[in-house]
Amino acid sequence: MKDMEKLSIVKIGGNIVEQEEALNRFTKSFAHLEGRKILVHGGGKIASKLAGDLGIEAKMVNGRRITDLETLKVVTMVYAGLANKNIVALLQANHCDAIGLSGADGDTIRTVKRPVKTIDYGFAGDMTPTSIHTKRIQSLLELNLFPVFSAITHNGEGQLLNTNADTIASALAIGLASSYAVSLIYCFEKKGVLSDIADDHSVITEIDQTKYTALREQGIIADGMIPKLDNAFDAIAQGVKKVIIKHADDLADEHAGTTIF
Amino acid sequence: MKDMEKLSIVKIGGNIVEQEEALNRFTKSFAHLEGRKILVHGGGKIASKLAGDLGIEAKMVNGRRITDLETLKVVTMVYAGLANKNIVALLQANHCDAIGLSGADGDTIRTVKRPVKTIDYGFAGDMTPTSIHTKRIQSLLELNLFPVFSAITHNGEGQLLNTNADTIASALAIGLASSYAVSLIYCFEKKGVLSDIADDHSVITEIDQTKYTALREQGIIADGMIPKLDNAFDAIAQGVKKVIIKHADDLADEHAGTTIF
Repeated sequence: MKDMEKLSIVKIGGNIVEQEEALNRFTKSFAHLEGRKILVHGGGKIASKLAGDLGIEAKMVNGRRITDLETLKVVTMVYAGLANKNIVALLQANHCDAIGLSGADGDTIRTVKRPVKTIDYGFAGDMTPTSIHTKRIQSLLELNLFPVFSAITHNGEGQLLNTNADTIASALAIGLASSYAVSLIYCFEKKGVLSDIADDHSVITEIDQTKYTALREQGIIADGMIPKLDNAFDAIAQGVKKVIIKHADDLADEHAGTTIF
Repeated sequence: MKDMEKLSIVKIGGNIVEQEEALNRFTKSFAHLEGRKILVHGGGKIASKLAGDLGIEAKMVNGRRITDLETLKVVTMVYAGLANKNIVALLQANHCDAIGLSGADGDTIRTVKRPVKTIDYGFAGDMTPTSIHTKRIQSLLELNLFPVFSAITHNGEGQLLNTNADTIASALAIGLASSYAVSLIYCFEKKGVLSDIADDHSVITEIDQTKYTALREQGIIADGMIPKLDNAFDAIAQGVKKVIIKHADDLADEHAGTTIF
């Protein structure tokens, strides 16, 4: 079997999207990243601020946003409009031929409205095993375009849906893993997975499944880091080559951050 | 020379975009339009309403919007976000494989910030003879995708710009006229160019340059219709096969409206 072409899927959070200088730095280093690549972004506090300015109350349950119709309009405007188009324009200025997409565009990501159990999350979209239109995304990559996904998807029946950006990134990575050697890169506000949460320099360079089990048993990896790493190992199990957790400013540094494999 | 493939470029105004039922009807008939096609849309009063809700004063000079930075944010959110993604999702629901684009996406439309003469229009983008990335748009059409353009473009240096949707539609038509037999279709609130403005059924079926001169001399075509028709004849002169002015509800009816050739 011949070597598969490399593909980097990079996820950035709202904290980068909403800071002009951080976003300028990030788009510059993303533009210079070699090979095929996809960007996935949230929109973060801009959406909450806009909702606030419009008198729409932010509804949260268990740390997750409840997407009522008014909130859906706001996140569609902010994520798929303002944030997405600004990022694309900045990438273009850095000679990166970016194309901004929601999941509705080219039917790239089709989700289902989250079923109502105890909580009605409203217009929240959940992934299914066939959500990612692999062939379509591949055809865009083969035009030497760099897709930039906002966290808005659709259900194929005319309804836009708000979808978690981390989930989109990992679903894209898994969906494209049979066509490319995928590196999934989560940029966040820390330099990686830390062995001492109080020490920013205590980055654990590599974690495999055995080491993960040990780190959990020792209590070094705990709380919010557990679902992140569980998702990372799930992606690895489904064919993604490696998952990297690093600071956005370290995107260009191949040796920075924590590599999960 | 072999016959060129047909391409329809359809422009709809904000009055359709903002009315749920009109938009449902329109997206259904656009989806059923045969052959390759491109949609260009405005966003109209939704942008003004949002600006109003946010306390941003709409600035107009000579009937044209002054795009200050706050207004640019609003139109980017409404045109490229809310309106564009809703239209794309509705088209997808009608089995039309639409892809929503601003001019920044894939560098499809690169404009220049309007030079300040007596009036500073702010972040308004003007077309140049090389604005349309013909090859890129053609490559998307050849993936059997149907581009849906919002009226947001970019200058290639990271700046988004607000651009007139009519102008985008005619620039696309002219830019693609060497590759396709282009019909440029302007949908508006009348059934076509009327010989009697008080009679909705007095549609002039066909207008060529000779007839246009006569109709102007007779005062039958006057006021706001003159720039529209001047632009139409300009497009014809630059290779567009025909320009059709019709009601959005008549899109499916090949014989409806006024054909300029």
